[in-house]
Amino acid sequence: MDLDQDAYTHHISQQFNDELEQAKNHLLEMGGLVERQVGDAIKALIDADSELGDRVQKKDDQVNRMEIEIDEECTRIIARRQPAASDLRLVIATSKAVSDLERIGDESAKIGRLAMKLCEEGEAPRGYVEIRHIGDRVRRMTQEALTAFARLDVDTALNVAREDKDVDREYESAMRELVTYMMEDPRSIKRVMNIIWSLRSLERIGDHARNIAENVIYLVKGTDVRHISIDEMQRQVQDD
Amino acid sequence: MDLDQDAYTHHISQQFNDELEQAKNHLLEMGGLVERQVGDAIKALIDADSELGDRVQKKDDQVNRMEIEIDEECTRIIARRQPAASDLRLVIATSKAVSDLERIGDESAKIGRLAMKLCEEGEAPRGYVEIRHIGDRVRRMTQEALTAFARLDVDTALNVAREDKDVDREYESAMRELVTYMMEDPRSIKRVMNIIWSLRSLERIGDHARNIAENVIYLVKGTDVRHISIDEMQRQVQDD
Repeated sequence: MDLDQDAYTHHISQQFNDELEQAKNHLLEMGGLVERQVGDAIKALIDADSELGDRVQKKDDQVNRMEIEIDEECTRIIARRQPAASDLRLVIATSKAVSDLERIGDESAKIGRLAMKLCEEGEAPRGYVEIRHIGDRVRRMTQEALTAFARLDVDTALNVAREDKDVDREYESAMRELVTYMMEDPRSIKRVMNIIWSLRSLERIGDHARNIAENVIYLVKGTDVRHISIDEMQRQVQDD
Repeated sequence: MDLDQDAYTHHISQQFNDELEQAKNHLLEMGGLVERQVGDAIKALIDADSELGDRVQKKDDQVNRMEIEIDEECTRIIARRQPAASDLRLVIATSKAVSDLERIGDESAKIGRLAMKLCEEGEAPRGYVEIRHIGDRVRRMTQEALTAFARLDVDTALNVAREDKDVDREYESAMRELVTYMMEDPRSIKRVMNIIWSLRSLERIGDHARNIAENVIYLVKGTDVRHISIDEMQRQVQDD
């Protein structure tokens, strides 16, 4: 290879690396926005802040636009650069993580709407402690899943998957309690149902954070760890 | 290009086409299975058939395995064949549709579990008419979305998106009615909640069928029609 050719190849691969890095940065930027959406949605619900709930709902458009843009970016990279091995995994993992982030954004927008409904219909007599607790956890899980993605950190990713199990348990127990409460005070059913739907959305946010974490494991290890238990996941990661 | 080279190129591209066709067929096969899962889940719920509910739940493993297999197949095609333009779109659309099918499978498994719970706790006093009606619609939508995918049929895809709007309206109205019913008969709350969760799952199945339909439009037209209204969608498709 003569020097010119070498410089040219180097130039191309540098450009390619820049493009990959840029797609990843756009994902993390979208992640930051979505994380704020989760936090704001919980705040709107707990503070009975109708205006904030409305803002969260409206900002979902921006999340949706980012999904489409980053998805296009990923397709462009595949079409032009024909990435292989770990580069291809990065593009695929990015595109999948974007879809999970969009859904987290969706669930946040739903919570924003429920916060507005609760402002109209009056506060629910129960469930705010659980909203705050589970809400904080899934917001942190979203953040950790993105950190794991940024740093290619398998341990943090495993941790997110583990936490999702806890969230599911806490969600089930909160649900049982709220159903019992509705039976004791039927007049509160409408308002409590808004809390129930909000908890459901938070539980789904936890699932999506877990998906992103599983994606990080795929990205780093090349193993698909969906649909297996945490123990099995840990074994697969260590065997590697 | 000499004849040998030509034959070689032809051979490669024939193999490539076979691989694309095969991935698409695997998707449609998975679609058939998932469609049956939706139908069986609804039947288990309406007939209070605990055994069928259990079968649906257990069969979800097979759906999950198919997701992973077809996803690997898509990644392999991208890595080896470096598809461009409409070929690349087909691979990407297949991979996304697989993820929606897996979620439809998940929701069906949830309904299977709820059918089992209803068998234990006793039938709900309300909501079966709505389950049957909305259930039939979203099962048909899933079927139509897959037909649209198989035939690259944009009109059928648009129709699925349109139907999803109706399903959402019917779901909202069923939900209001069930909440009112729970207020009148608080002792039924636990059982009615199982119906409410089932309806929620059906509504989600409709959303995923719509996603698959939007994917068909992307595949055929190359336009991303997510997050826009049906009217806007129709305009974009016709402008093309």
